[in-house]
Amino acid sequence: MALGGVEPGHTRPGGRTARVRDAVLRAAGDALAEHGMDALDLGDVARRAQVGKTTVYRRWGTVPILVADLLRDMADQSLPRTETGSLLGDLTANARLVQETLADARQGALFKAVIAAATCDAATARALHAFYATRVGEWAPCVEQAVDRGELPPGTDPHEVVRAVSAPLYYSLLCTGGALDAAAADRAAAAAAAAARAGLHVRSGD
Amino acid sequence: MALGGVEPGHTRPGGRTARVRDAVLRAAGDALAEHGMDALDLGDVARRAQVGKTTVYRRWGTVPILVADLLRDMADQSLPRTETGSLLGDLTANARLVQETLADARQGALFKAVIAAATCDAATARALHAFYATRVGEWAPCVEQAVDRGELPPGTDPHEVVRAVSAPLYYSLLCTGGALDAAAADRAAAAAAAAARAGLHVRSGD
Repeated sequence: MALGGVEPGHTRPGGRTARVRDAVLRAAGDALAEHGMDALDLGDVARRAQVGKTTVYRRWGTVPILVADLLRDMADQSLPRTETGSLLGDLTANARLVQETLADARQGALFKAVIAAATCDAATARALHAFYATRVGEWAPCVEQAVDRGELPPGTDPHEVVRAVSAPLYYSLLCTGGALDAAAADRAAAAAAAAARAGLHVRSGD
Repeated sequence: MALGGVEPGHTRPGGRTARVRDAVLRAAGDALAEHGMDALDLGDVARRAQVGKTTVYRRWGTVPILVADLLRDMADQSLPRTETGSLLGDLTANARLVQETLADARQGALFKAVIAAATCDAATARALHAFYATRVGEWAPCVEQAVDRGELPPGTDPHEVVRAVSAPLYYSLLCTGGALDAAAADRAAAAAAAAARAGLHVRSGD
């Protein structure tokens, strides 16, 4: 479930400060997944993380700041892109990662909570946009390589293609309630590849 | 802004009961667009609609029931599909309608509020899924006609194609903060058409 969140048993280098951040962000993610943004409370997060309340208030101060830091961490911790040697292979790997993340109970709930919060808080919206910019940027080289290999027309916008892979999966999660299974992921990847091959993601002006 | 909501000056047939519903749903939509779901209160809606509080409580009872009725009304009131004679023309008309709705200040805020509420309320989620099922069903015949004209392979899933048009626009609205302009709408339509032509939305088993 590598697109976001910190997995149980996951360890990271760093001293006490890094361990505190790790514990607090994990607790914040758990609380968000369980009860959503409305119930998120720094005191409760401190209790869950077994960290002093003062530390949490001094370091993060407000819920939107804590959530922005969680999103930054989710972007940093997410798996690097897969390289399969073909556009369709790479986009399918990306689609499966997104689909598995959104279909996972904890991660799906966490994404829903943060996306819902972003609809009514500008700071959270900015943090969310930055999260997707990082994630999309991570996978953009698979499109650039496909252009270099001659699989896609020159001037294809790599970010546009990567976003096209995720869009139908998020639309199912948030709007239509459509299936979030491997078949949906594979279809999303194949559709994005077909549109890109047809030249529909070539930047205007190129 | 025909995808949802009731426009100012809009009149519908019906007696007092229909007029009360009209006023209450318009007030509920206004309140949602202005303050989101958390602040939605039946008493406030009654005041805004200049309708007795008892009437609102007796008829709708709870916020999720009121929101479900609003979504039903938005689906009923939305414009019928456009027929341009070509798949790309029809899908572009649909994409422009979705894009204009989501880019509109009131309507965009209303959709965000309802989608956010659906992330943490099962009844609202069911009402939202039903709304999209109706909307998608309204536009599905343009895909069926494209199959009949030989523009698309037999067995193409019309709902899948129509959903593919909306997905990138909602993904921009809710997740990435990407542009919601006419160019984005046209790209969404063209990408969905290209993927459909490539046979990627053919139902498995067909």
